[in-house]
Amino acid sequence: MRQVVECVANFSEGQRVDVIDQIVNAIDDVWGVTVLGSESDVDHNRTVVSFAGKPDGIVEAAFEGIRRASELINLDVHRGQHPRLGATDVVPFIPIEGVTMADCVKLARQLGQRVGEELQIPVYLYEQAATRTDRQNLADVRRGEYEVLKQTITTDPDRQPDFGPTQLGTAGATIIGARYALIAFNVYLTTDNIDVAKKIAQAIRHSSGGLRYVKALGLLVDGRAQVSMNLTNYKETPIHRVVEMIRIEAQRYGVGIESSELIGLIPQDALLDAAAWYLQMDNYQPDKVLEHRLQRLMS
Amino acid sequence: MRQVVECVANFSEGQRVDVIDQIVNAIDDVWGVTVLGSESDVDHNRTVVSFAGKPDGIVEAAFEGIRRASELINLDVHRGQHPRLGATDVVPFIPIEGVTMADCVKLARQLGQRVGEELQIPVYLYEQAATRTDRQNLADVRRGEYEVLKQTITTDPDRQPDFGPTQLGTAGATIIGARYALIAFNVYLTTDNIDVAKKIAQAIRHSSGGLRYVKALGLLVDGRAQVSMNLTNYKETPIHRVVEMIRIEAQRYGVGIESSELIGLIPQDALLDAAAWYLQMDNYQPDKVLEHRLQRLMS
Repeated sequence: MRQVVECVANFSEGQRVDVIDQIVNAIDDVWGVTVLGSESDVDHNRTVVSFAGKPDGIVEAAFEGIRRASELINLDVHRGQHPRLGATDVVPFIPIEGVTMADCVKLARQLGQRVGEELQIPVYLYEQAATRTDRQNLADVRRGEYEVLKQTITTDPDRQPDFGPTQLGTAGATIIGARYALIAFNVYLTTDNIDVAKKIAQAIRHSSGGLRYVKALGLLVDGRAQVSMNLTNYKETPIHRVVEMIRIEAQRYGVGIESSELIGLIPQDALLDAAAWYLQMDNYQPDKVLEHRLQRLMS
Repeated sequence: MRQVVECVANFSEGQRVDVIDQIVNAIDDVWGVTVLGSESDVDHNRTVVSFAGKPDGIVEAAFEGIRRASELINLDVHRGQHPRLGATDVVPFIPIEGVTMADCVKLARQLGQRVGEELQIPVYLYEQAATRTDRQNLADVRRGEYEVLKQTITTDPDRQPDFGPTQLGTAGATIIGARYALIAFNVYLTTDNIDVAKKIAQAIRHSSGGLRYVKALGLLVDGRAQVSMNLTNYKETPIHRVVEMIRIEAQRYGVGIESSELIGLIPQDALLDAAAWYLQMDNYQPDKVLEHRLQRLMS
C-alpha cells in the first residue's frame, strides 16, 4: 500500500530569493520527497512550501528545511505583515494516502523532538497533535508573536514548549502539528448585493454559530456577491453540506448559486464523497472505484 | 505517465473449473497484467475475466486467453443460456488511465489481426472499433449465434469477418472491440409500485426515446420499485444527468429517490464529474485533484 503524507511548511522569508531557494533545495534534496509548490509573499515576508512523500522522508525533509531556515533567517531583524513565531513558523503534516491522522500526529511529535533536541529550537505542537486544548488553535499558539514570546517563554509556565529549550534564539520557535487538508472554496451568487453574501457567510461559519469546520466571508468579486470559504476538516463538515446550506440561505433572499470555484487543490475523497451523497449511493465505498481497486491489485 | 487499459474477456465455459483455471492462468501469466476478477455462470456456461495492464501486455494477455480457449472449448458441443459466437466470445478494451479510446481501438485491431492470422479464427470488430455501422451493436454481430454463422459466413458477404478466414472452426468466431467502462447502477424509489419504475425506465432509456447511452428496466426488488440500469458511455450521458432525470420523472408520480446502488465498479472520473456538476464547480479540472497532481509530479 502506498503511503503519502503532505507537508505545508511556512518560512519567515518572502523577499531574499537566494534564501528561499536554499530552503526549498534542502527539502527537495531528500530522497523520495517531491516539492509540489512554493509561494512567496513579499509583504508578508513569508514563503509557503508544499511537499509530499513517504512518512520517513517527509520528516527528514521538514527537518532539513527547518535547519536551513534557522541558519539563514534572524527573527530579530525580520519584519512582515504576517504574524510569526520563528524562522520556520508552522509545519503541519496532512494525511493523503495510506496514512491516518494518528500517523501524522506521530510524525509531528518525531519532528518536534528532533527540532527541539538537535536544533535547540522550542517547538509547540498544535491542531490534531496538540498536547493541550489551548494549543489546538494556531492563532492562540502564535499570540504576541516572536517578540512577546521571547520574554514570556522564560517566565510563563503556560508557554513552556513541548520540546526544546525554554528560551528563544534568533530562529524563534516552531509550531508543528497535523491537520486535514484545507479546501479553499468560493461560491458565487446570482446577485451583486454583497449584503446577501455577508449574511450567508455569517449563517454558515463556525465563529457565528454555523458549521464547525467552516470559515467564511462575504465579498464582492467581479461584480458578483461571493461567499469565500476555508473548509478546515472536509471529513466532518463535507463540502456538499456547505454548498446546500448556502443554497438554502440564498433562497431566503430570492438568490441562487451561479457557480463555485476551487482555489488550489482538493483531496480526491472530498469530491468522491460529494458525488456519492448527491447520487444517494448508499453502498458507496472507496473500493468501488475502479482505479482504487486497480491500484490495490497492481501494487 | 502511467498507461492502464482494462480488458473484459467473455469465454464460453462456466462449468469445467479446470478449463476456466487454464484460461485465467494463461492471462495472468503475462508480465505486467493483473487479473482483477473472474465470474463464472453455470447456466450461461460462460466466464467473464477482467484484467488490466499496459497496452502491450494487455493485447498479449488477451491473445493468450483466446489461444487457450480455442484449444479447450468446442462450440459444436457447447450449450448455455447466453448467446455466443465463439470459444472466446467478446473481448472489449476499455481506456482507464493515460490512454484514449483511439488507443483502445488500435489495440482491438492489433489483437484482431493476430487472432485472425495466427489462430485462424474469424474476428468481427465491434462498438468503437467497428469498421461498419451495422457492427457497432454487439447483439447485431452475434445474431443467429455460432450455429447460424457457421452457414452464413461462407455465403453472406455481410458476414465477412474483419480478420481471419471466412469459415468457422470449433472455436467459432470472436468479437473484439473498444468501449467505455460500463456502469451498472440501480435507483430505488420510495414506492412498492413497479409500474412507476417501469414508466420511469421507459422515459429515460435510449430504446424508447430517452438518453442515448442508457439501458433501463423497471423491477420490484426487496419490495421496492427499482430502476435498474446500464450506462454504456458515462462520458456522454453522465450519471448525474440520469439520476436527476429519474428524480423529475418520479416526482410526476409523487415519488422520490430512496437510494441508489452500484453493481461492480465505477470509473473515478464518473464520480468526480458528478461532484463538480452538483457543486457547480465551473473551474473543475482533473488536475485540481490533489492526488492527480501528486501522481503527476511524483512519477
